[in-house]
Amino acid sequence: MTRTPAERAAAVLAGDVRTAARLMRDLDDEVPGAAETMGLLHRHTGKADVVGITGNPGAGKSTLTDQLIGAWRARGLRVGVVAIDPSSPFTGGAILGDRVRMQRHSADRGVFIRSLATRGLLGGLSRSTRDVVNVLDAMGFDRVLIETVGVGQDEVDVANTAHCSVVVLVPGLGDGVQALKAGLLEIADLFVVNKADRPDADRVVRELELVLELEGGVRHGWRVPVLRTVATENRGVEALLDAVEAHLAHLRATGAWQTRLRARRQGELTDRLFHALRRRSEAAIGRAGGMDTLLDRLDRGEVGPDALVSELLDGAP
Amino acid sequence: MTRTPAERAAAVLAGDVRTAARLMRDLDDEVPGAAETMGLLHRHTGKADVVGITGNPGAGKSTLTDQLIGAWRARGLRVGVVAIDPSSPFTGGAILGDRVRMQRHSADRGVFIRSLATRGLLGGLSRSTRDVVNVLDAMGFDRVLIETVGVGQDEVDVANTAHCSVVVLVPGLGDGVQALKAGLLEIADLFVVNKADRPDADRVVRELELVLELEGGVRHGWRVPVLRTVATENRGVEALLDAVEAHLAHLRATGAWQTRLRARRQGELTDRLFHALRRRSEAAIGRAGGMDTLLDRLDRGEVGPDALVSELLDGAP
Repeated sequence: MTRTPAERAAAVLAGDVRTAARLMRDLDDEVPGAAETMGLLHRHTGKADVVGITGNPGAGKSTLTDQLIGAWRARGLRVGVVAIDPSSPFTGGAILGDRVRMQRHSADRGVFIRSLATRGLLGGLSRSTRDVVNVLDAMGFDRVLIETVGVGQDEVDVANTAHCSVVVLVPGLGDGVQALKAGLLEIADLFVVNKADRPDADRVVRELELVLELEGGVRHGWRVPVLRTVATENRGVEALLDAVEAHLAHLRATGAWQTRLRARRQGELTDRLFHALRRRSEAAIGRAGGMDTLLDRLDRGEVGPDALVSELLDGAP
Repeated sequence: MTRTPAERAAAVLAGDVRTAARLMRDLDDEVPGAAETMGLLHRHTGKADVVGITGNPGAGKSTLTDQLIGAWRARGLRVGVVAIDPSSPFTGGAILGDRVRMQRHSADRGVFIRSLATRGLLGGLSRSTRDVVNVLDAMGFDRVLIETVGVGQDEVDVANTAHCSVVVLVPGLGDGVQALKAGLLEIADLFVVNKADRPDADRVVRELELVLELEGGVRHGWRVPVLRTVATENRGVEALLDAVEAHLAHLRATGAWQTRLRARRQGELTDRLFHALRRRSEAAIGRAGGMDTLLDRLDRGEVGPDALVSELLDGAP
């Protein structure tokens, strides 16, 4: 692996899966040369349609993702997937899950699945996710799917990164008002009620539609639909795919597609800047004798928190 | 309101609710003098027991919080609450909810409830939360309860801030393996299965206990228990409170209480540093002509993302 960034970039552009996977890992680990390679790939990004899919644990997102991959493949489209698995914010460990479930696609060259664990560091997740999305984009995948869990800053970031955000709900998990409360309404371009064969599915759909009506439910001239699926039986998946594709076509027709791409670019630049800043602050803490020394000084009341921050950043005594 | 930071700090320490509420707002808005006031309060913090309570939307956390407040009050303890309501990551707007539900405590001087909305900015939530916790701590509240939704970076931060983390689950929302997958196991000091009168509650409790057994289920010598509540009927709340208090006593007995306080202090310092760095990066973007100018330069391929970040941070052309 003594190839130059230019050679690696060329291999990724040619669709070399092994080089791409290695580059993703190297970007994550900040191996020298990886950022340079990504810099060369940058102008080849901005072509893929990026679709986010989020929902609470147990909503059936992984199964739905699996079905969506199959449906896109049947339409001749190549699909890259980033599955963000916050299984272990503390240990970074991986747990049996999405990977195994999606193994039926593992022999398909038109599908590339990358799982990421939360790092437990501010901005860490976003940066890795964005890098993987960009590598998949540069490789020429037609659709890039980002699967996340729950609703938090990560999901807001994903909504800002994706062209189309799909929010998956299930009956029995709260009602439309809960969805509203959880901030899902601002994120969703499409709602999916999965496990729609459950008895209380109709009520959830009605409540969501009611809440959408009350709140406008229109984003950039797009009326947010509520769809039903039974992912385990592959029911409703084609209709969901049609709706996703209709939303992407709508974005392209109105120019909103470019606006969202630009928002993604802005997020990337901000992330990158933050990351560099965090590195610098870690270095400053190190120069000041390490975190324990600083906390001891705070505990003894020698210095206040704000004065300490100024000292760290400006190098003043 | 032309009081000096010292006067405001004295008023907060004397338990003046109005001054405390104003200080929390001012800290959030970064009104000049607020950080100085907090600096003066800093050495009066580190006394309260901080308890986190988290779970998915619809798990009944708000009702449970309400009941816990009542139970603590009945034991003569004063309770501060930070309810983090991510109702609207984009607009910051507030939605009818926790505040209304907890109004029965509004005339009680032994209870202080503060709702926060997610800001949609990296680190914004954590900083506000930590500030509010510290003000409540300085005011002498015996217990400070932090209520959050779901599992994300915010909840991991809360777990790192709190002495005791309570995770609320409900039947029908997935099983023990889902909890494991969602990273709840690393966060929880206590599990609560709320709505325990539902038919499948036993199954959820059993699965959780099984998963806990497989994974060890012991943190710092504390065996993580699984409790049952029916918050709407105030059933199981006393037993939950007993378990929380037993955990706090365990932490004090083993010295882990101080370790967790120190972890909170470290998080505070890191947040503060990060926030200062973000301010600086925003200023750098402004000096470089604003975000749009930078994105245009990237789009035209004049500069790569990494070179641009170096330019922004080092002021190089």
